[in-house]
Amino acid sequence: MRWRDVGKLDCTIARTLSVIGDRWTLLVLRDAFLGTRRFDAFQASLGITRHRLADRLRKLVGHGVLRRERYQASPPRFEYRLTEKGHDLYGVIVTIAGWGDKHMAGKEGPPVERVHRGCGHVTALRLTCDHCGDAVTARDMTARPTKRYRDTTTRSTSDRRSKERA
Amino acid sequence: MRWRDVGKLDCTIARTLSVIGDRWTLLVLRDAFLGTRRFDAFQASLGITRHRLADRLRKLVGHGVLRRERYQASPPRFEYRLTEKGHDLYGVIVTIAGWGDKHMAGKEGPPVERVHRGCGHVTALRLTCDHCGDAVTARDMTARPTKRYRDTTTRSTSDRRSKERA
Repeated sequence: MRWRDVGKLDCTIARTLSVIGDRWTLLVLRDAFLGTRRFDAFQASLGITRHRLADRLRKLVGHGVLRRERYQASPPRFEYRLTEKGHDLYGVIVTIAGWGDKHMAGKEGPPVERVHRGCGHVTALRLTCDHCGDAVTARDMTARPTKRYRDTTTRSTSDRRSKERA
Repeated sequence: MRWRDVGKLDCTIARTLSVIGDRWTLLVLRDAFLGTRRFDAFQASLGITRHRLADRLRKLVGHGVLRRERYQASPPRFEYRLTEKGHDLYGVIVTIAGWGDKHMAGKEGPPVERVHRGCGHVTALRLTCDHCGDAVTARDMTARPTKRYRDTTTRSTSDRRSKERA
């Protein structure tokens, strides 16, 4: 399978990775969450070529994750800001950071800590069930096809069979 | 900057992405969390070449995310199982899935739903502060350098200055 076909798969993880499943894209998003907005600032932080950075920014704007906004009229200058859809990626970035802080930080410990503005404390975020509120790990969870998806699959299989018979 | 140098950066997000910041690697992990263990099963699910899959599995074993275990003696056959370090990546996979379910599912809705074994309900996991327990989004959080890291940075800067003077 070629990578450009992956976005067409039903799996929403595969579809999401067709948008953000690129290391530089995820580092652009990390910087956006830390407040970076301007092309030159992204470039200084990431140390990548203008061409590569422009490509990643254009893609994120195209997917509605960032929006390009003019902050100066003459000469025209633009900045890149997270949309609501972009803000929703915070969980992805912060869980990557959390794993890295635990497993990749080395003896000096992590370079960054996160503070919950609401309570004022340094916090490691955790995943909880939105029904009962308990903290969960992989072992507490199970996945199953949704009813609608099972119906769709059955329907398209029988559609295909009808066509094969026709 | 070349990608292989990114793992050396202090940022634990960058370091984590040097392990998992590859689309196929993340899809291998998705399948591992869904219970896939054998080479042929990963290959059938992902539709990638044996060479590419072997490369991703070897890398994940090398980083201690998967372990390679013999399940048959003659001829020797191996399966790939998540380690504890690998299980800790569940949050990354499930937040990617959550974003995809919200933004990429299309009109049919997501193909998979997740059930919390503890309470038996279908759940969308959410991130909560481990201090006060409140649900958080990007806007509730702020990031700052850790004290130890500030000290380290200051020390290495003055070390460098001493060397420059020497």
